[in-house]
Amino acid sequence: MQMSEARNAVVLLSGGLDSATTLAIAQAEGYVVHALTFRYGQRHAFELEAARRIASVRNVASHRMVDIDLHQFGGSALTSDDIAVPVGRSLEEMGTGIPVTYVPARNTVFLSLALAFAEVLPADDIFLGVNALDYSGYPDCRPEFIQAFETLANLATKAGVEGQRRFRIHVPLISLTKAEIIRRGGELQVDYSLTSTCYAPDESGRACGQCDACLLRSQGFKAADVADPTIYISA
Amino acid sequence: MQMSEARNAVVLLSGGLDSATTLAIAQAEGYVVHALTFRYGQRHAFELEAARRIASVRNVASHRMVDIDLHQFGGSALTSDDIAVPVGRSLEEMGTGIPVTYVPARNTVFLSLALAFAEVLPADDIFLGVNALDYSGYPDCRPEFIQAFETLANLATKAGVEGQRRFRIHVPLISLTKAEIIRRGGELQVDYSLTSTCYAPDESGRACGQCDACLLRSQGFKAADVADPTIYISA
Repeated sequence: MQMSEARNAVVLLSGGLDSATTLAIAQAEGYVVHALTFRYGQRHAFELEAARRIASVRNVASHRMVDIDLHQFGGSALTSDDIAVPVGRSLEEMGTGIPVTYVPARNTVFLSLALAFAEVLPADDIFLGVNALDYSGYPDCRPEFIQAFETLANLATKAGVEGQRRFRIHVPLISLTKAEIIRRGGELQVDYSLTSTCYAPDESGRACGQCDACLLRSQGFKAADVADPTIYISA
Repeated sequence: MQMSEARNAVVLLSGGLDSATTLAIAQAEGYVVHALTFRYGQRHAFELEAARRIASVRNVASHRMVDIDLHQFGGSALTSDDIAVPVGRSLEEMGTGIPVTYVPARNTVFLSLALAFAEVLPADDIFLGVNALDYSGYPDCRPEFIQAFETLANLATKAGVEGQRRFRIHVPLISLTKAEIIRRGGELQVDYSLTSTCYAPDESGRACGQCDACLLRSQGFKAADVADPTIYISA
Protein backbone atom coordinates (compact mmCIF):
# COMPACT_ATOMS: atom_id res chain seq x y z
CA MET A 1 0.00 0.00 0.00
CA GLN A 2 1.95 3.04 -1.25
CA MET A 3 0.67 6.60 -1.38
CA SER A 4 1.37 8.70 -4.45
CA GLU A 5 3.13 11.34 -2.38
CA ALA A 6 5.12 10.58 0.75
CA ARG A 7 3.79 12.35 3.82
CA ASN A 8 5.29 12.87 7.24
CA ALA A 9 3.94 11.12 10.30
CA VAL A 10 5.00 11.40 13.93
CA VAL A 11 5.12 7.94 15.56
CA LEU A 12 5.32 7.60 19.33
CA LEU A 13 7.96 4.94 19.88
CA SER A 14 8.35 3.59 23.41
CA GLY A 15 10.55 0.66 22.44
CA GLY A 16 7.86 -1.92 23.18
CA LEU A 17 6.15 -4.46 20.95
CA ASP A 18 3.10 -2.32 20.22
CA SER A 19 4.89 0.86 19.20
CA ALA A 20 7.38 -1.08 17.03
CA THR A 21 4.44 -2.63 15.18
CA THR A 22 2.69 0.74 14.88
CA LEU A 23 5.84 2.23 13.33
CA ALA A 24 5.96 -0.58 10.75
CA ILE A 25 2.27 -0.04 9.92
CA ALA A 26 2.84 3.70 9.36
CA GLN A 27 5.70 2.87 6.99
CA ALA A 28 3.59 0.26 5.19
CA GLU A 29 0.92 2.95 4.68
CA GLY A 30 3.54 5.07 2.92
CA TYR A 31 4.34 7.62 5.61
CA VAL A 32 7.78 9.08 6.16
CA VAL A 33 8.21 8.32 9.85
CA HIS A 34 9.57 10.74 12.45
CA ALA A 35 9.85 8.79 15.70
CA LEU A 36 9.42 10.41 19.10
CA THR A 37 10.56 8.75 22.33
CA PHE A 38 10.17 10.14 25.84
CA ARG A 39 12.54 9.86 28.75
CA TYR A 40 9.81 10.50 31.30
CA GLY A 41 11.38 9.22 34.48
CA GLN A 42 10.51 5.56 33.90
CA ARG A 43 12.19 2.93 36.08
CA HIS A 44 14.70 1.71 33.53
CA ALA A 45 16.41 2.75 30.30
CA PHE A 46 16.24 -0.55 28.41
CA GLU A 47 13.15 0.53 26.52
CA LEU A 48 14.98 3.70 25.40
CA GLU A 49 17.76 1.50 24.01
CA ALA A 50 15.13 -0.64 22.34
CA ALA A 51 13.57 2.45 20.76
CA ARG A 52 16.96 3.46 19.38
CA ARG A 53 17.55 0.03 17.86
CA ILE A 54 14.09 -0.13 16.29
CA ALA A 55 14.35 3.38 14.82
CA SER A 56 17.74 2.46 13.40
CA VAL A 57 16.81 -0.83 11.72
CA ARG A 58 13.55 0.61 10.35
CA ASN A 59 15.40 3.55 8.76
CA VAL A 60 13.14 6.29 10.10
CA ALA A 61 13.56 9.82 8.74
CA SER A 62 14.33 11.14 12.22
CA HIS A 63 14.24 9.99 15.84
CA ARG A 64 14.00 12.37 18.77
CA MET A 65 14.40 11.60 22.45
CA VAL A 66 12.56 14.16 24.54
CA ASP A 67 13.02 14.62 28.27
CA ILE A 68 9.90 15.15 30.30
CA ASP A 69 10.15 14.36 33.97
CA LEU A 70 6.86 12.78 35.06
CA HIS A 71 8.82 11.18 37.91
CA GLN A 72 8.65 14.47 39.79
CA PHE A 73 4.86 14.13 40.02
CA GLY A 74 4.95 10.42 40.98
CA GLY A 75 1.64 8.62 41.41
CA SER A 76 2.52 5.49 39.41
CA ALA A 77 4.44 2.25 39.89
CA LEU A 78 6.30 3.17 36.69
CA THR A 79 7.52 6.54 37.93
CA SER A 80 7.64 6.23 41.72
CA ASP A 81 9.93 4.09 43.85
CA ASP A 82 7.22 3.94 46.50
CA ILE A 83 4.75 1.88 44.45
CA ALA A 84 5.64 -1.73 43.53
CA VAL A 85 5.02 -3.23 40.09
CA PRO A 86 2.47 -6.06 40.53
CA VAL A 87 3.56 -9.56 39.50
CA GLY A 88 1.94 -12.89 38.71
CA ARG A 89 -1.54 -11.53 38.07
CA SER A 90 -4.09 -13.47 36.03
CA LEU A 91 -5.84 -11.92 33.03
CA GLU A 92 -8.97 -11.66 35.22
CA GLU A 93 -7.06 -9.70 37.86
CA MET A 94 -5.53 -7.44 35.19
CA GLY A 95 -9.02 -6.79 33.83
CA THR A 96 -10.25 -5.34 37.11
CA GLY A 97 -9.87 -1.60 37.52
CA ILE A 98 -7.06 0.73 36.54
CA PRO A 99 -3.64 -0.74 37.41
CA VAL A 100 -1.04 0.99 39.60
CA THR A 101 1.18 1.13 36.50
CA TYR A 102 -1.16 3.83 35.17
CA VAL A 103 0.91 7.03 34.82
CA PRO A 104 -1.25 10.10 35.45
CA ALA A 105 -2.09 11.89 32.19
CA ARG A 106 0.82 10.20 30.39
CA ASN A 107 -0.74 9.80 26.96
CA THR A 108 -2.18 13.33 27.16
CA VAL A 109 1.31 14.68 27.81
CA PHE A 110 2.88 12.49 25.09
CA LEU A 111 0.26 13.37 22.46
CA SER A 112 0.55 17.07 23.32
CA LEU A 113 4.28 17.01 22.63
CA ALA A 114 3.74 14.94 19.49
CA LEU A 115 1.27 17.61 18.37
CA ALA A 116 3.82 20.38 18.95
CA PHE A 117 6.36 18.41 16.89
CA ALA A 118 3.81 17.61 14.16
CA GLU A 119 2.74 21.23 13.79
CA VAL A 120 6.31 22.39 13.21
CA LEU A 121 7.50 19.42 11.11
CA PRO A 122 4.92 19.65 9.43
CA ALA A 123 2.95 16.43 9.77
CA ASP A 124 -0.81 15.95 9.90
CA ASP A 125 -0.64 12.41 11.18
CA ILE A 126 0.30 11.07 14.62
CA PHE A 127 0.50 7.34 15.33
CA LEU A 128 0.07 5.84 18.80
CA GLY A 129 0.24 2.13 19.61
CA VAL A 130 -2.57 1.76 22.14
CA ASN A 131 -4.71 -1.36 21.93
CA ALA A 132 -7.74 -3.15 23.34
CA LEU A 133 -5.77 -4.80 26.14
CA ASP A 134 -4.51 -1.41 27.25
CA TYR A 135 -7.84 0.30 27.13
CA SER A 136 -9.47 -2.32 29.27
CA GLY A 137 -7.35 -0.76 32.03
CA TYR A 138 -5.91 2.60 31.09
CA PRO A 139 -8.34 5.50 30.60
CA ASP A 140 -6.01 7.26 28.15
CA CYS A 141 -5.94 4.28 25.78
CA ARG A 142 -9.69 4.26 25.04
CA PRO A 143 -11.20 5.27 21.69
CA GLU A 144 -13.17 8.11 23.31
CA PHE A 145 -9.95 9.59 24.69
CA ILE A 146 -8.26 9.40 21.28
CA GLN A 147 -11.29 11.04 19.64
CA ALA A 148 -11.32 13.83 22.24
CA PHE A 149 -7.62 14.46 21.70
CA GLU A 150 -8.08 14.68 17.92
CA THR A 151 -10.84 17.25 18.44
CA LEU A 152 -8.60 19.20 20.80
CA ALA A 153 -5.64 19.09 18.40
CA ASN A 154 -7.60 20.82 15.68
CA LEU A 155 -8.81 23.54 18.06
CA ALA A 156 -5.44 24.03 19.76
CA THR A 157 -3.21 24.76 16.81
CA LYS A 158 -2.61 27.42 14.21
CA ALA A 159 -2.56 24.74 11.52
CA GLY A 160 -5.86 23.28 12.72
CA VAL A 161 -7.66 26.60 13.14
CA GLU A 162 -6.52 28.13 9.88
CA GLY A 163 -7.86 25.03 8.16
CA GLN A 164 -4.76 24.34 6.06
CA ARG A 165 -4.49 20.97 7.70
CA ARG A 166 -6.40 18.51 9.78
CA PHE A 167 -4.58 16.54 12.45
CA ARG A 168 -5.41 12.87 12.74
CA ILE A 169 -4.49 10.53 15.59
CA HIS A 170 -3.98 7.01 14.20
CA VAL A 171 -4.35 4.06 16.56
CA PRO A 172 -4.05 1.08 14.17
CA LEU A 173 -3.80 -1.47 17.01
CA ILE A 174 -6.75 -0.25 19.02
CA SER A 175 -9.07 -3.16 18.34
CA LEU A 176 -6.40 -5.87 18.01
CA THR A 177 -5.45 -8.54 20.52
CA LYS A 178 -1.79 -9.03 21.36
CA ALA A 179 -1.71 -12.14 19.13
CA GLU A 180 -3.14 -10.20 16.19
CA ILE A 181 -0.58 -7.44 16.71
CA ILE A 182 2.25 -9.99 16.70
CA ARG A 183 0.96 -11.60 13.50
CA ARG A 184 0.64 -8.21 11.80
CA GLY A 185 4.17 -7.32 12.90
CA GLY A 186 5.44 -10.60 11.51
CA GLU A 187 3.98 -9.75 8.09
CA LEU A 188 5.84 -6.43 8.26
CA GLN A 189 9.15 -7.99 9.32
CA VAL A 190 9.19 -6.41 12.76
CA ASP A 191 12.08 -7.88 14.75
CA TYR A 192 10.53 -8.35 18.19
CA SER A 193 13.87 -9.41 19.67
CA LEU A 194 14.75 -5.71 19.55
CA THR A 195 11.75 -4.61 21.61
CA SER A 196 11.51 -4.22 25.39
CA THR A 197 8.21 -4.70 27.19
CA CYS A 198 8.94 -5.68 30.79
CA TYR A 199 8.09 -3.20 33.59
CA ALA A 200 10.88 -4.54 35.84
CA PRO A 201 13.83 -6.09 33.96
CA ASP A 202 17.05 -7.13 35.73
CA GLU A 203 20.33 -5.23 35.44
CA SER A 204 21.17 -6.89 32.13
CA GLY A 205 17.76 -6.09 30.64
CA ARG A 206 16.29 -9.59 30.89
CA ALA A 207 12.48 -9.57 31.25
CA CYS A 208 10.98 -10.60 34.61
CA GLY A 209 8.30 -12.78 33.01
CA GLN A 210 5.89 -11.97 35.87
CA CYS A 211 4.65 -8.38 35.46
CA ASP A 212 1.42 -7.62 33.57
CA ALA A 213 3.35 -6.50 30.47
CA CYS A 214 5.47 -9.67 30.34
CA LEU A 215 2.47 -11.93 30.88
CA LEU A 216 0.39 -10.25 28.17
CA ARG A 217 3.35 -10.37 25.79
CA SER A 218 4.25 -14.01 26.33
CA GLN A 219 0.61 -15.11 26.14
CA GLY A 220 0.34 -13.11 22.91
CA PHE A 221 3.20 -15.01 21.31
CA LYS A 222 1.65 -18.32 22.42
CA ALA A 223 -1.77 -17.38 21.04
CA ALA A 224 -0.21 -16.21 17.77
CA ASP A 225 1.75 -19.47 17.58
CA VAL A 226 4.93 -17.47 17.06
CA ALA A 227 8.23 -18.21 18.84
CA ASP A 228 8.79 -15.65 21.62
CA PRO A 229 12.26 -14.08 21.18
CA THR A 230 12.16 -12.45 24.64
CA ILE A 231 14.95 -13.38 27.06
CA TYR A 232 13.38 -13.98 30.46
CA ILE A 233 15.17 -14.11 33.82
CA SER A 234 13.61 -17.44 34.76
CA ALA A 235 13.15 -19.15 31.42
CA MET B 1 -15.07 34.74 49.41
CA GLN B 2 -13.89 31.85 51.61
CA MET B 3 -14.85 28.20 51.11
CA SER B 4 -15.69 26.12 54.16
CA GLU B 5 -12.93 23.64 53.29
CA ALA B 6 -9.69 24.62 51.61
CA ARG B 7 -9.12 22.82 48.30
CA ASN B 8 -6.02 22.50 46.20
CA ALA B 9 -5.68 24.20 42.84
CA VAL B 10 -2.87 24.06 40.31
CA VAL B 11 -2.15 27.53 38.93
CA LEU B 12 -0.04 27.98 35.79
CA LEU B 13 2.31 30.81 36.66
CA SER B 14 4.39 32.27 33.83
CA GLY B 15 5.56 35.31 35.75
CA GLY B 16 3.48 37.70 33.66
CA LEU B 17 0.72 40.09 34.63
CA ASP B 18 -2.12 37.74 33.70
CA SER B 19 -0.92 34.65 35.57
CA ALA B 20 -0.06 36.72 38.68
CA THR B 21 -3.62 38.04 38.69
CA THR B 22 -5.05 34.56 38.11
CA LEU B 23 -3.08 33.26 41.10
CA ALA B 24 -4.51 36.01 43.29
CA ILE B 25 -8.04 35.22 42.10
CA ALA B 26 -7.60 31.51 42.94
CA GLN B 27 -6.46 32.47 46.43
CA ALA B 28 -9.35 34.91 46.81
CA GLU B 29 -11.71 32.05 45.91
CA GLY B 30 -10.28 30.08 48.82
CA TYR B 31 -8.02 27.63 46.99
CA VAL B 32 -4.70 26.39 48.34
CA VAL B 33 -2.47 27.26 45.40
CA HIS B 34 0.21 24.99 43.94
CA ALA B 35 2.00 27.02 41.29
CA LEU B 36 3.52 25.43 38.18
CA THR B 37 6.06 27.23 35.99
CA PHE B 38 7.64 25.88 32.82
CA ARG B 39 11.17 26.39 31.56
CA TYR B 40 10.21 25.60 27.98
CA GLY B 41 13.12 27.06 26.04
CA GLN B 42 11.81 30.62 26.02
CA ARG B 43 14.20 33.41 25.02
CA HIS B 44 14.96 34.75 28.46
CA ALA B 45 14.78 33.75 32.12
CA PHE B 46 13.44 37.00 33.57
CA GLU B 47 9.90 35.68 33.61
CA LEU B 48 11.07 32.63 35.58
CA GLU B 49 12.58 34.96 38.18
CA ALA B 50 9.33 36.90 38.20
CA ALA B 51 7.37 33.67 38.78
CA ARG B 52 9.61 32.86 41.77
CA ARG B 53 9.08 36.30 43.30
CA ILE B 54 5.32 36.20 42.82
CA ALA B 55 5.02 32.68 44.28
CA SER B 56 7.08 33.80 47.24
CA VAL B 57 5.20 36.98 48.12
CA ARG B 58 1.81 35.31 47.61
CA ASN B 59 2.75 32.46 49.98
CA VAL B 60 1.70 29.60 47.72
CA ALA B 61 1.61 26.07 49.17
CA SER B 62 4.16 24.89 46.61
CA HIS B 63 5.89 26.11 43.45
CA ARG B 64 7.37 23.75 40.88
CA MET B 65 9.58 24.64 37.95
CA VAL B 66 9.27 22.00 35.24
CA ASP B 67 11.65 21.63 32.30
CA ILE B 68 10.08 20.95 28.95
CA ASP B 69 12.15 21.83 25.94
CA LEU B 70 9.81 23.21 23.27
CA HIS B 71 12.86 24.99 21.83
CA GLN B 72 13.91 21.73 20.18
CA PHE B 73 10.78 21.83 18.02
CA GLY B 74 11.14 25.55 17.19
CA GLY B 75 8.42 27.14 15.06
CA SER B 76 7.91 30.28 17.18
CA ALA B 77 9.56 33.64 17.71
CA LEU B 78 9.55 32.82 21.43
CA THR B 79 11.46 29.54 21.07
CA SER B 80 13.51 29.93 17.89
CA ASP B 81 16.41 32.27 17.25
CA ASP B 82 15.49 32.31 13.55
CA ILE B 83 12.19 34.16 13.98
CA ALA B 84 12.22 37.79 15.17
CA VAL B 85 9.78 39.17 17.76
CA PRO B 86 7.65 41.83 15.99
CA VAL B 87 7.82 45.37 17.39
CA GLY B 88 5.81 48.59 17.14
CA ARG B 89 2.58 46.99 15.93
CA SER B 90 -0.77 48.72 16.32
CA LEU B 91 -3.73 47.01 17.99
CA GLU B 92 -5.23 46.56 14.52
CA GLU B 93 -2.11 44.80 13.29
CA MET B 94 -2.06 42.58 16.39
CA GLY B 95 -5.68 41.67 15.76
CA THR B 96 -4.90 40.24 12.31
CA GLY B 97 -4.09 36.53 12.22
CA ILE B 98 -2.07 34.36 14.56
CA PRO B 99 1.20 36.07 15.58
CA VAL B 100 4.67 34.53 15.11
CA THR B 101 4.95 34.50 18.90
CA TYR B 102 2.44 31.61 18.86
CA VAL B 103 4.24 28.54 20.28
CA PRO B 104 2.93 25.33 18.67
CA ALA B 105 0.64 23.45 21.05
CA ARG B 106 2.07 25.29 24.06
CA ASN B 107 -1.08 25.53 26.17
CA THR B 108 -1.96 21.91 25.31
CA VAL B 109 1.43 20.81 26.61
CA PHE B 110 1.21 23.04 29.70
CA LEU B 111 -2.33 21.95 30.59
CA SER B 112 -1.39 18.28 30.09
CA LEU B 113 1.41 18.58 32.61
CA ALA B 114 -0.83 20.56 34.97
CA LEU B 115 -3.33 17.70 34.68
CA ALA B 116 -0.66 15.11 35.56
CA PHE B 117 0.28 17.20 38.61
CA ALA B 118 -3.35 17.78 39.59
CA GLU B 119 -4.23 14.11 39.42
CA VAL B 120 -1.41 13.17 41.79
CA LEU B 121 -1.69 16.16 44.15
CA PRO B 122 -4.75 15.74 44.24
CA ALA B 123 -6.46 18.84 42.89
CA ASP B 124 -9.62 19.07 40.79
CA ASP B 125 -9.03 22.64 39.74
CA ILE B 126 -6.54 24.09 37.28
CA PHE B 127 -6.25 27.85 36.71
CA LEU B 128 -4.91 29.39 33.49
CA GLY B 129 -4.58 33.13 32.82
CA VAL B 130 -5.69 33.35 29.19
CA ASN B 131 -7.83 36.35 28.21
CA ALA B 132 -9.80 37.97 25.42
CA LEU B 133 -6.77 39.79 23.98
CA ASP B 134 -4.90 36.50 23.76
CA TYR B 135 -7.69 34.56 22.18
CA SER B 136 -8.11 37.10 19.42
CA GLY B 137 -4.77 35.73 18.20
CA TYR B 138 -3.80 32.46 19.83
CA PRO B 139 -5.93 29.40 19.04
CA ASP B 140 -5.12 27.74 22.38
CA CYS B 141 -6.47 30.68 24.37
CA ARG B 142 -10.04 30.44 23.04
CA PRO B 143 -13.01 29.29 25.14
CA GLU B 144 -13.66 26.34 22.78
CA PHE B 145 -10.11 25.10 23.31
CA ILE B 146 -10.47 25.34 27.09
CA GLN B 147 -13.78 23.47 26.95
CA ALA B 148 -12.27 20.73 24.76
CA PHE B 149 -9.37 20.33 27.17
CA GLU B 150 -11.71 20.01 30.15
CA THR B 151 -13.63 17.28 28.31
CA LEU B 152 -10.35 15.52 27.50
CA ALA B 153 -9.09 15.80 31.09
CA ASN B 154 -12.07 13.88 32.43
CA LEU B 155 -11.66 11.13 29.81
CA ALA B 156 -7.88 10.90 30.14
CA THR B 157 -7.48 10.27 33.82
CA LYS B 158 -8.16 7.61 36.40
CA ALA B 159 -9.67 10.24 38.67
CA GLY B 160 -11.96 11.51 35.91
CA VAL B 161 -13.06 8.08 34.67
CA GLU B 162 -13.69 6.58 38.07
CA GLY B 163 -15.90 9.56 38.77
CA GLN B 164 -14.42 10.37 42.17
CA ARG B 165 -13.57 13.79 40.86
CA ARG B 166 -14.26 16.15 38.04
CA PHE B 167 -11.46 18.29 36.68
CA ARG B 168 -12.25 21.89 35.92
CA ILE B 169 -10.16 24.35 33.93
CA HIS B 170 -10.68 27.86 35.32
CA VAL B 171 -9.97 30.84 33.08
CA PRO B 172 -11.15 33.77 35.21
CA LEU B 173 -9.63 36.40 32.89
CA ILE B 174 -11.01 35.02 29.66
CA SER B 175 -13.53 37.77 28.98
CA LEU B 176 -11.61 40.63 30.60
CA THR B 177 -9.66 43.41 28.91
CA LYS B 178 -6.14 44.17 30.09
CA ALA B 179 -7.44 47.23 31.98
CA GLU B 180 -10.07 45.13 33.76
CA ILE B 181 -7.42 42.55 34.71
CA ILE B 182 -5.19 45.28 36.15
CA ARG B 183 -8.06 46.74 38.18
CA ARG B 184 -9.01 43.30 39.52
CA GLY B 185 -5.38 42.66 40.43
CA GLY B 186 -5.22 45.99 42.23
CA GLU B 187 -8.20 44.98 44.39
CA LEU B 188 -6.32 41.78 45.26
CA GLN B 189 -3.03 43.58 46.07
CA VAL B 190 -1.10 42.06 43.17
CA ASP B 191 2.29 43.76 42.97
CA TYR B 192 2.74 44.18 39.22
CA SER B 193 6.28 45.51 39.68
CA LEU B 194 7.22 41.86 40.31
CA THR B 195 5.81 40.63 37.00
CA SER B 196 7.61 40.30 33.65
CA THR B 197 5.69 40.59 30.38
CA CYS B 198 8.14 41.68 27.66
CA TYR B 199 9.04 39.21 24.89
CA ALA B 200 12.49 40.77 24.39
CA PRO B 201 13.90 42.47 27.52
CA ASP B 202 17.51 43.76 27.66
CA GLU B 203 20.27 42.06 29.66
CA SER B 204 19.17 43.69 32.89
CA GLY B 205 15.55 42.66 32.39
CA ARG B 206 14.17 46.06 31.35
CA ALA B 207 11.13 45.80 29.07
CA CYS B 208 11.54 46.79 25.40
CA GLY B 209 8.28 48.75 25.32
CA GLN B 210 7.75 47.85 21.65
CA CYS B 211 6.71 44.18 21.41
CA ASP B 212 3.03 43.18 21.36
CA ALA B 213 3.15 42.12 25.02
CA CYS B 214 4.69 45.44 26.18
CA LEU B 215 2.25 47.50 24.12
CA LEU B 216 -0.81 45.64 25.39
CA ARG B 217 0.46 45.90 28.95
CA SER B 218 1.27 49.62 28.88
CA GLN B 219 -2.00 50.46 27.14
CA GLY B 220 -3.78 48.37 29.79
CA PHE B 221 -2.31 50.44 32.62
CA LYS B 222 -3.27 53.66 30.83
CA ALA B 223 -6.83 52.48 30.22
CA ALA B 224 -7.14 51.34 33.85
CA ASP B 225 -5.77 54.73 34.98
CA VAL B 226 -3.22 52.91 37.14
CA ALA B 227 0.46 53.91 37.33
CA ASP B 228 2.57 51.45 35.27
CA PRO B 229 5.40 50.09 37.47
CA THR B 230 7.21 48.54 34.50
CA ILE B 231 10.80 49.70 33.87
CA TYR B 232 11.17 50.29 30.13
CA ILE B 233 14.45 50.59 28.19
CA SER B 234 13.39 53.84 26.53
CA ALA B 235 11.07 55.43 29.09
